[in-house]
Amino acid sequence: MENRSVLELLKSTLGENKVLCSLENLYVYGFDATPVYRGKPMAVIRAYSTEDVMKVLTIANDYAIPVVPRGHGTSLTGAVIPVEGGLILDLSPMKRIEVDVENGIVVAEAGATIGEVNAECRKYGFFFPPDPASAEVATVGGALATDAGGMRGARYGTMRNWVLAMKVVVPGGRVLRLGAPVYKWRCGLNLLHLFVGSEGTLGVITEATLKMLPLPEKIVRLLALFETVDEAVTAICSIRRRALNPLILELLDESTIKSVNEVFNLNMPEVGAAVIADVDGPKEAVERLGKEMAEVFEECGAISVRIASDEGEMEKLYAARRGAYPAVSRLYPIVLIEDIVVPLSKLAEAIRRIKELSSKYGVAIVVFGHAGDGNIHPCICMSSRDEESMRLAEKVFYEICRIAIELGGTVSGEHGIGLQKVHALVEELKYRESSWLLEVMREVKKVFDPKGIMNPGKFFMRCRKCWEV
Amino acid sequence: MENRSVLELLKSTLGENKVLCSLENLYVYGFDATPVYRGKPMAVIRAYSTEDVMKVLTIANDYAIPVVPRGHGTSLTGAVIPVEGGLILDLSPMKRIEVDVENGIVVAEAGATIGEVNAECRKYGFFFPPDPASAEVATVGGALATDAGGMRGARYGTMRNWVLAMKVVVPGGRVLRLGAPVYKWRCGLNLLHLFVGSEGTLGVITEATLKMLPLPEKIVRLLALFETVDEAVTAICSIRRRALNPLILELLDESTIKSVNEVFNLNMPEVGAAVIADVDGPKEAVERLGKEMAEVFEECGAISVRIASDEGEMEKLYAARRGAYPAVSRLYPIVLIEDIVVPLSKLAEAIRRIKELSSKYGVAIVVFGHAGDGNIHPCICMSSRDEESMRLAEKVFYEICRIAIELGGTVSGEHGIGLQKVHALVEELKYRESSWLLEVMREVKKVFDPKGIMNPGKFFMRCRKCWEV
Repeated sequence: MENRSVLELLKSTLGENKVLCSLENLYVYGFDATPVYRGKPMAVIRAYSTEDVMKVLTIANDYAIPVVPRGHGTSLTGAVIPVEGGLILDLSPMKRIEVDVENGIVVAEAGATIGEVNAECRKYGFFFPPDPASAEVATVGGALATDAGGMRGARYGTMRNWVLAMKVVVPGGRVLRLGAPVYKWRCGLNLLHLFVGSEGTLGVITEATLKMLPLPEKIVRLLALFETVDEAVTAICSIRRRALNPLILELLDESTIKSVNEVFNLNMPEVGAAVIADVDGPKEAVERLGKEMAEVFEECGAISVRIASDEGEMEKLYAARRGAYPAVSRLYPIVLIEDIVVPLSKLAEAIRRIKELSSKYGVAIVVFGHAGDGNIHPCICMSSRDEESMRLAEKVFYEICRIAIELGGTVSGEHGIGLQKVHALVEELKYRESSWLLEVMREVKKVFDPKGIMNPGKFFMRCRKCWEV
Repeated sequence: MENRSVLELLKSTLGENKVLCSLENLYVYGFDATPVYRGKPMAVIRAYSTEDVMKVLTIANDYAIPVVPRGHGTSLTGAVIPVEGGLILDLSPMKRIEVDVENGIVVAEAGATIGEVNAECRKYGFFFPPDPASAEVATVGGALATDAGGMRGARYGTMRNWVLAMKVVVPGGRVLRLGAPVYKWRCGLNLLHLFVGSEGTLGVITEATLKMLPLPEKIVRLLALFETVDEAVTAICSIRRRALNPLILELLDESTIKSVNEVFNLNMPEVGAAVIADVDGPKEAVERLGKEMAEVFEECGAISVRIASDEGEMEKLYAARRGAYPAVSRLYPIVLIEDIVVPLSKLAEAIRRIKELSSKYGVAIVVFGHAGDGNIHPCICMSSRDEESMRLAEKVFYEICRIAIELGGTVSGEHGIGLQKVHALVEELKYRESSWLLEVMREVKKVFDPKGIMNPGKFFMRCRKCWEV
């Protein structure tokens, strides 16, 4: 069937208003939050219910049309770019959130943001642990599809630790109810966690049941300043070995501090490195724990350690870290953000080698991230958008991925693979003598998506770049 | 090829000493920890390395011979019974444990016990969070294969939250290195968590990289006594809604208390229900948190609340809960142990309905478990081993599963499905309008095990009982 007839069929099945075909729409839905990728869908479908998604995946499967599920398009890896055209399936209208206080769970549709989920939980004295920097815009569906983490990852890990059940639609339009809305389950093979982090390559997540936690009694936030990144990293590793159990443990290097100062008019001291740490817990203990943490920072050579004294100061510090990527993006026309993870014991070496690359290629590399997890986000910053700069940035990008791989780490901790790291993933698996896994993953995909319509060209799938590998 | 020739091949490939064929061995390896199932393997292979496992899965796949991986055989569901003969693959000789303090991880071979892993971690001031009651005998491989949980599940969930990477051998003898030895990873589709809880139906786990935690500063243990189970459950639900964040939250009903008193010579007051709860955290706060928890217990009608005063008393309480199943098993010739999970808000109703079944059928049902997770272990206790008692026990067993299903819960939280709950799992998925998932799971299995040699007849696979469903 011709594309035009398929569009007519979609319109008559879903209703005209849910199928967007204007040039403007096709243009804007061709991007995500990366500066380098774009595509052009044949249409954008705005889904308002699981039934809508079922209808779309029935028709798309019948006519073998690519489908790219999308929330608010905050992907940092090109994961929602319609590289092979087809349909963008926009789940952002699906925003229902229901808190179940008695059972400590919250049911959210795919289009609700993590921030909205958290706001709902807070009304009842709870919170939702994962906290990606983009929480105010990132949707539940997208966060699950990438297995997002964020600042509180040091304590609480990523989305996969907090999802109990999901409603998923697969090509052909069938609904899979995965997991169960209880704290523990073993209902057959664990397909739930197969879909978490699958980046839209298996099906479409439309609803999730998430576990929430009661709010902690008190949080103390520390800012430790160091002359060198090395000292900051030593302090982070040292804290990880103690019972201090930090809620967040974030690193900002000098260039990050300068960037946030400039963009957000902050006045953080522009030293070699800063660590922001949260300790939470019982009210009578957090002060002492904060002091113990401060002592560790001092033992590791901190120039100064400050315990935030009020809510306002705490917020400002959090905003500084949260604003790191937006700040850097505002200062440079091209920023490629990494998401590597290395064993904690290799973190200092990883950052040293990244800084060497910066000197070697004369490229600014800003380093910040969830250092307490060994997960950092070096940003390769280019001052111009020309072809040559782009090529150089990509070269440096892959070299940083290779550093992570050689140090026994991985190329992505939470952003996902998308388009950007397909090749790096291939390298990583090769290094781990596991190239064969790609074949296995493709076979697993076929069980759900035999025609290969779901988000083609992404993640573990063949693309031109890695065709030969 | 004849079985005899296959055995010769195994012996010449692995070495005579690793292939056990004596009648005594075939007999003892025909059981697990359930009282009802038995099978007879054609041989038992003792694996000493991943290479041994590779050789076995090469030969077994070539000749389409069933393989049942097994640790110490503590399965409570018949999961390691060789129902279709074939080979028992005993991984208990693989016991290497290596703690990596700098990176907060521990690498353990499949045959190491959870207790041994914990003992190693403790040497360095760490512990391993999951803590199944059988930790001293349960192996890492078995715990991962069932996605075991245990007492500290209230805080820390099950094995899947604490495994970072695994080495797995699949039919044909290939090794899959799943996940990565870092705190966060996204190396392609999440096959790691597909294998966790797969009960040996996809391949053989030979090694795992686990995340450990620094030991808490202090733990306070409480024993609260109630006249009725209803009051105890109300208290448990109430605690779950506060920031008290218990480490364990366990329920023992009157019959459990009587059983542990009798078998272990304890002198717990024989009241309607007891709750054992742990609060851990900073030393200056735990006492206060313990007191707050005690107040909640009292508000909910506790007859008495006692905060354990010393190490000895704390141990005794833990032992009482840990010994519940062994005690009941010693008192009755046949005990079928359940592992249902229901939403917390339905826990009281679930237990009430279970007690009604007890009266209706005149069968003793002892109830204890991880009530803080909604996960309880009702034990159906029969005074004689005759055919009629067995049939009645199985009938009651399924009725309890049905209660869990009807209340929106699940038939297994941590023990797994094995042989015992295949039919219940089918019921559960049917109730959730997800029967189709069984087909999907079988297709996923085929990717790894096209000949169906891995632990046939278990879990999500067809068996005579559910053939028609």
